[in-house]
Amino acid sequence: MYNLLKGKKGIIFGALDENSIAWKVAERAHEEGAEFVLTNAPIAMRMGGIKDLAAKTGSEIIPADATSMDDLNNLVEKSMEILGGKIDFVLHSIGMSVNVRKGKHYTDSNYDFTTKGWDVSAVSFHKVMNVLYNKQAMNEWGSIVALTYMAAQRVFPDYNDMADNKAYLESIARSFGYFFGRDHKVRVNTISQSPTPTTAGQGVKGFDGFISYAEKMSPLGNATALECADYTISLFSDLTKKVTLQNLFHDGGFSNMGVSDSVMERFIEE
Amino acid sequence: MYNLLKGKKGIIFGALDENSIAWKVAERAHEEGAEFVLTNAPIAMRMGGIKDLAAKTGSEIIPADATSMDDLNNLVEKSMEILGGKIDFVLHSIGMSVNVRKGKHYTDSNYDFTTKGWDVSAVSFHKVMNVLYNKQAMNEWGSIVALTYMAAQRVFPDYNDMADNKAYLESIARSFGYFFGRDHKVRVNTISQSPTPTTAGQGVKGFDGFISYAEKMSPLGNATALECADYTISLFSDLTKKVTLQNLFHDGGFSNMGVSDSVMERFIEE
Amino acid sequence: MYNLLKGKKGIIFGALDENSIAWKVAERAHEEGAEFVLTNAPIAMRMGGIKDLAAKTGSEIIPADATSMDDLNNLVEKSMEILGGKIDFVLHSIGMSVNVRKGKHYTDSNYDFTTKGWDVSAVSFHKVMNVLYNKQAMNEWGSIVALTYMAAQRVFPDYNDMADNKAYLESIARSFGYFFGRDHKVRVNTISQSPTPTTAGQGVKGFDGFISYAEKMSPLGNATALECADYTISLFSDLTKKVTLQNLFHDGGFSNMGVSDSVMERFIEE
Amino acid sequence: MYNLLKGKKGIIFGALDENSIAWKVAERAHEEGAEFVLTNAPIAMRMGGIKDLAAKTGSEIIPADATSMDDLNNLVEKSMEILGGKIDFVLHSIGMSVNVRKGKHYTDSNYDFTTKGWDVSAVSFHKVMNVLYNKQAMNEWGSIVALTYMAAQRVFPDYNDMADNKAYLESIARSFGYFFGRDHKVRVNTISQSPTPTTAGQGVKGFDGFISYAEKMSPLGNATALECADYTISLFSDLTKKVTLQNLFHDGGFSNMGVSDSVMERFIEE
Repeated sequence: MYNLLKGKKGIIFGALDENSIAWKVAERAHEEGAEFVLTNAPIAMRMGGIKDLAAKTGSEIIPADATSMDDLNNLVEKSMEILGGKIDFVLHSIGMSVNVRKGKHYTDSNYDFTTKGWDVSAVSFHKVMNVLYNKQAMNEWGSIVALTYMAAQRVFPDYNDMADNKAYLESIARSFGYFFGRDHKVRVNTISQSPTPTTAGQGVKGFDGFISYAEKMSPLGNATALECADYTISLFSDLTKKVTLQNLFHDGGFSNMGVSDSVMERFIEE
Repeated sequence: MYNLLKGKKGIIFGALDENSIAWKVAERAHEEGAEFVLTNAPIAMRMGGIKDLAAKTGSEIIPADATSMDDLNNLVEKSMEILGGKIDFVLHSIGMSVNVRKGKHYTDSNYDFTTKGWDVSAVSFHKVMNVLYNKQAMNEWGSIVALTYMAAQRVFPDYNDMADNKAYLESIARSFGYFFGRDHKVRVNTISQSPTPTTAGQGVKGFDGFISYAEKMSPLGNATALECADYTISLFSDLTKKVTLQNLFHDGGFSNMGVSDSVMERFIEE
Repeated sequence: MYNLLKGKKGIIFGALDENSIAWKVAERAHEEGAEFVLTNAPIAMRMGGIKDLAAKTGSEIIPADATSMDDLNNLVEKSMEILGGKIDFVLHSIGMSVNVRKGKHYTDSNYDFTTKGWDVSAVSFHKVMNVLYNKQAMNEWGSIVALTYMAAQRVFPDYNDMADNKAYLESIARSFGYFFGRDHKVRVNTISQSPTPTTAGQGVKGFDGFISYAEKMSPLGNATALECADYTISLFSDLTKKVTLQNLFHDGGFSNMGVSDSVMERFIEE
Repeated sequence: MYNLLKGKKGIIFGALDENSIAWKVAERAHEEGAEFVLTNAPIAMRMGGIKDLAAKTGSEIIPADATSMDDLNNLVEKSMEILGGKIDFVLHSIGMSVNVRKGKHYTDSNYDFTTKGWDVSAVSFHKVMNVLYNKQAMNEWGSIVALTYMAAQRVFPDYNDMADNKAYLESIARSFGYFFGRDHKVRVNTISQSPTPTTAGQGVKGFDGFISYAEKMSPLGNATALECADYTISLFSDLTKKVTLQNLFHDGGFSNMGVSDSVMERFIEE
């Protein structure tokens, strides 16, 4: 559309199917002139149509378990070979709570599940940056983005331990972002996205009602996956070089609402 | 009850009637052993039963328009005479939007009304501190508290220009609090209180429905005026000497909620 | 460069000279294909080279005192005539403290100066949106941006009453942004920019030392006026349609730093 | 002093030696009329003088590894036996980074160390509340407090993975605090304390310089361990019943400073 990413090289984690935000980011990055490698966990790749996406965008796929330093080392090395140079942008779109999947309530966590979910959803972001930083794999003024959710700041009862994982993830963005900025001129940010009806999001209890609530609370309505991809493109582009360590709400205004007229309508009869 | 304010001297702005938070603060401060002066705008004093409060707490009343530097100079001088020394604590509980009173919508403000409401609700806090600071009227480790509301951070559509006034008020607390701390060891904070059914609050449109919404959103329910008075006492006491420049939410947890189960119940049928 | 604003029409407040952020925004908006009207206070226009900017960008100039509803009504009407339709983007880059100019310390404010500075720096933003909203002058998915500074959240002792003005300005963005989003699908945000050596900024005492401090604190260094213009373009573009009510830090990471190694170096000898 | 905790029963984690904040809390809680059990990790107890504290405050000691559900179950059961009823207040003052202890830089973490530190410093708080909640061991209007540090919000380069652990801890306070408030009327908050020269804090590199920096930045200076104990008492008392889900800065104002005059002095020569 605009050639915003012309000549830029990237790695995109987490494209599962066409509902995924990462899938939309890949499509939009391709339209904007970028070249990139797609990656996902080996098990996730069996389910999704990531090969179609690769074909459509002229990308190669490198499977990687984002909790494995070996896999990540291989991913980054191979990506630089395939793309012919250092990396300009990275999208981390990975999250999974075993407690949610197994139906364990937050007040009755299984701590092995807690640890596994934390490793996949949050520590993986540290590991990805660890590899990129120590291999000096990022170009100066590169951009790293992870997707997060406002449960890191405020209580959403059904979000379970993903709230805590996202708080940890956002902290990693600041902590590692400092060193990545100081040493390599790379920026690191998180996008805190509206609840989005992705395949992954559908695991959360009462998700439809919650999407409706968020829609009514947000003056511009919920942000879609495609709109999130557009916003992500702006953060990968050269227009945002000095934005770093930030958690950026992309949510139609939800995050700064106390209450909307539309939500209040349900309470006025009392 | 605990003698937390034994020997301390104060000035309490804004006690109108027994629903006022300032009224409850006066009663509780008296119970805790403090001596203080009560003050309110001359016009407000005609309406309320402040003389009963003065009798009950052994206090004198000094009328003052909190937008008038002359009145405030007189108030502070007289207070020190009456109380026999410098001041240990001050409560600022003053707020009024002329646009709200006159039914002007936020998108159609009358800017004379806006200016008047800003002067009364926000600048008055600067003026009070200006007088206290320049007269060196506060004892070291004194405590100044102003009441505010979360509309300063998040949108509550019917709160009108009081949202902006409260944002300005909270900024004054930080800006002046720095100099008051650095130079006189005095702390300055704001308490961001639950919606409270005071006589003043009743002017806001749809207030009852909003109180019900806030009650359902807050895990501990809304904080009452008496509970706010208790919290204010803790901030006047010597237990909180190093708390300054803070905006402290006293709201049963509302401020850090995204949504509660109880609020979501109204949205699940969709 | 990218045609990001092709076909879009705008109004840009506050271009004084080539150091101004608004000046850089005008240049970049022109490069991106936008058409716009330039405006500034009549008195400011006598000092600056705004005519050169107008010539360079093919723009017309409409003088307006941003505190005058008459001037703003005229500005918006004339702009729509000149541009041949509704407005897509607006930049508010206006700020001035009379207390700072006259050397009045924050603890010794002249309240007439306080009121004048508040009207120019903060209420002007409400008035601009009031006119745009009530004339239905904005296209759907339009974007309104005001420039602000982090003194709205944290204490910078020499920033004086501009801190409070910026807090009020940011609150207006949320308060009016709700109605503009709900009713007209227009987004409203503020950019909280690094200290920038503009002509206006030079009035603040100790500004050079402060710029050096901010440079050392920020992992990516201070953001320049041109970089701010780039970021502003991204917020005017269609890539950020669902970002609203936000205060967006554009500061090389300063806002989320507690301390940097580079700042700590000055304190380690102790 | 004030009998603020008369008749209240508690559990205090983390008193190591007389420099510990938890030690000061125990002393102050005793003065205020509380009865409580002291607990610490078996290994930590060998080093400290916790027996002296127990003798001085008439308390019993129950060793517990705060990462062990068995130990925590035993602790809570025994505590209720010893104290003769349910618990009114709990202090969690536990934190340890193996990466810091072993000298691993944040950009080169050992992930086994990361996991161990996270479990001890953050998940332990979830486990403590899990046991208290499921055993219904807390009285209504009880209060749970954990100690944290502002590195959860802002970058302090030497704080290493403790920053991320504290972010996770603060998120647990909100997430579990919702259910504890809704179901048992118990409040959960964190206190974000000034850097404090405890035995534990001394492990952090450059800690003395950092304390000096924080002292110069804070208008009231750093908060001491004893002052933190006073503040904690206020949060255990009945004066703060409706404060919940909050992260409360107790830091002489540091958290809301951009820069102080005293810090700027080091930068003005440039």
